[in-house]
Amino acid sequence: MSEQLGERPAPPPCGEPSEAGIPTVGMVGAGQLARMTCPAATELGVGFRLLAEAAGDSAARVWPDVRLGDYRSLGDLRGFAAGCDVLTFDHEHVPGAALAALEQAGFVLRPGAAALHFAQDKLAMRERLSKLGIACPRYVPVSDLAGIEQFAEGSGWPLVLKAISGGYDGKGVWVCASPHEAAEVVAEASGRGLRLLAEEFVAFDRELAALVARSPHRQGAAYPVVQTVQRRGICREVLAPAPRLAPDRAEEAQLIALRLASELDVTGLLAVELFDTPGGLLVNELAMRPHNCGHWTIEGATTSQFQQHLRAVLDLPLGAPSLLAPVVVMANVLGGNDPDVYDRYIHVMAADPGVKVHLYGKTVRPGRKIGHVTVLGGDVAGLRERARRAASFLRWGDEEAE
Amino acid sequence: MSEQLGERPAPPPCGEPSEAGIPTVGMVGAGQLARMTCPAATELGVGFRLLAEAAGDSAARVWPDVRLGDYRSLGDLRGFAAGCDVLTFDHEHVPGAALAALEQAGFVLRPGAAALHFAQDKLAMRERLSKLGIACPRYVPVSDLAGIEQFAEGSGWPLVLKAISGGYDGKGVWVCASPHEAAEVVAEASGRGLRLLAEEFVAFDRELAALVARSPHRQGAAYPVVQTVQRRGICREVLAPAPRLAPDRAEEAQLIALRLASELDVTGLLAVELFDTPGGLLVNELAMRPHNCGHWTIEGATTSQFQQHLRAVLDLPLGAPSLLAPVVVMANVLGGNDPDVYDRYIHVMAADPGVKVHLYGKTVRPGRKIGHVTVLGGDVAGLRERARRAASFLRWGDEEAE
Repeated sequence: MSEQLGERPAPPPCGEPSEAGIPTVGMVGAGQLARMTCPAATELGVGFRLLAEAAGDSAARVWPDVRLGDYRSLGDLRGFAAGCDVLTFDHEHVPGAALAALEQAGFVLRPGAAALHFAQDKLAMRERLSKLGIACPRYVPVSDLAGIEQFAEGSGWPLVLKAISGGYDGKGVWVCASPHEAAEVVAEASGRGLRLLAEEFVAFDRELAALVARSPHRQGAAYPVVQTVQRRGICREVLAPAPRLAPDRAEEAQLIALRLASELDVTGLLAVELFDTPGGLLVNELAMRPHNCGHWTIEGATTSQFQQHLRAVLDLPLGAPSLLAPVVVMANVLGGNDPDVYDRYIHVMAADPGVKVHLYGKTVRPGRKIGHVTVLGGDVAGLRERARRAASFLRWGDEEAE
Repeated sequence: MSEQLGERPAPPPCGEPSEAGIPTVGMVGAGQLARMTCPAATELGVGFRLLAEAAGDSAARVWPDVRLGDYRSLGDLRGFAAGCDVLTFDHEHVPGAALAALEQAGFVLRPGAAALHFAQDKLAMRERLSKLGIACPRYVPVSDLAGIEQFAEGSGWPLVLKAISGGYDGKGVWVCASPHEAAEVVAEASGRGLRLLAEEFVAFDRELAALVARSPHRQGAAYPVVQTVQRRGICREVLAPAPRLAPDRAEEAQLIALRLASELDVTGLLAVELFDTPGGLLVNELAMRPHNCGHWTIEGATTSQFQQHLRAVLDLPLGAPSLLAPVVVMANVLGGNDPDVYDRYIHVMAADPGVKVHLYGKTVRPGRKIGHVTVLGGDVAGLRERARRAASFLRWGDEEAE
């Protein structure tokens, strides 16, 4: 005879660690990027802890190891960091002075404070890019309308004004058609204590994004370059790989991102948003974290950006960034006027059994990113149609009003 | 100008539900099957609650909404069910009487008590299969050695003795080469109050598994039929799709599983383990939950078995079960003698950037399933080699001793 009938194994005592030597990654912020990192931490079986603002935050709804605190408070950050082997971030809003203080206190930040500075300060980023000879839109820091009008003599109107720090998802970016409009922004910025940058308005053909990972061991991995489609400053669609992108331009975009990751000493993910123009690629924005341009990797790549970020900040060897289908399309789901999204699942799923729906557990507000959908296949036009239909049906009702 | 600089949105108050009308699935049990269901619940944004035996259970380590209780206690089950819209299970060990009582009290069980009976009672399952004309190994219930020897006159030796209920992962199954060995099993079973079944020892060519889902709306979806490779009664590898399986036999296996799901009124997943013999397919075992034979679907199918189970028990339209690569291979990681698995990650990941590693957060014990690895590609032999190498390196050390 060859087997014994066993009792079910006794459960381990409460709180017993499952394995020796397993590190804990602490992520500051508990938005949807942190939420989508939770399944990656589950798969790898590593420790993962969130610093959330509230128990109802997107990621805090789906993860047990959550501390509540204020990401602007050095005390809260220090208390949080004390229980983690490495600290990383789901947003760029931790004050630079706090980041520096954490590093001085001996905590391991990935990316580090020096790297994050370039994701937090658009002027410092532009100046660094210029020094490196990496092309970006013409820019100048401005403090008043006179400075803007002087810049406009070269750039013409419209031009773009940007808050040097604190913006996201199109917030903090103003396209100004006239000195009158620019004056309004200057007044508003002045009232809020915001520093401004003026940039030329780039007539790009399309927007691209290059997503790479870099580990403390200096290993790099580059995902296929994608096309991003924005409306009103908010990403609406991502097409992977970027359709009909010449191989040398794709390679150029990946090399820019890998070089920037190295030059800025980024550890973890680096997303580089680029303008594709007749004259070449221009770097628009940087982010040092999982990024909307990489949500397609959850189903569409061998290694999702969320697992890749964990591997990079843990200094594990990086995973293959290869595509699992010829084309992957992601569309963001923005909140509409109806708070009940779940009641549309049955229709979306019945209409398209191949669409992958992700909801972030966020309260629905018009225009807010509340989820995304992903489809894999071979035909970019057909996939875009499927993704748009699913995303717009989940939003329901006010797509035409945009 | 076109955008406003916004403050970060205020977080919702603690505990505020994210969306209206979102149902909660309660899963009894918090082992690795429940653990791998957590990412699926995160993606769908549905409520998910676990009844765990201990806070250290595999799934309880990665999910916030956990109740502690005893799955054998009707009181604990009722208290748990009261907060859920639908109840489902990560194992077959809830007593049948408790299941019936829960249904009588009005709780929604998917699968229901009547269906689960056939997953819990191998004699009832065999009798039902026989009535349906679905082929299975010859069997007879036995209560003493005389009955076994009588059965052996037809089946010969060796024969198989099985506990009619309570077995899993090869436990509760004895291959007996002689009346002497059978007598030992009878004595042990008698001491434990176990009822026994005698079955012919089937000289199969290989083992297959057909995994299907069925919803209360009676929609069905069938995954590609896989080959499973067992050693000592424990699944070690799954090859998807089953290599060189004739299309008509693959279809026959899927039809058996879909028919059984319908005849037994299964809601959720049904895994049917089959023997592939020169004379045809024989049904070996049933399970009505996510199953080891479907772990490959996490990366390898459009819809993972875990999301599929949630969709089925929520009566949502089922997802596409299609493969994302020509071949997907999964290998289980069994515990070895070294409790520290994490320190081997760096080597496994460096050796093969394409391998996907899943660890279950379980205390390592020799022979215990503690994780699995998955690889996608085109060449089954090469993928098996990669999966075995990764799994055996994670186990490390005593593979030869088996």
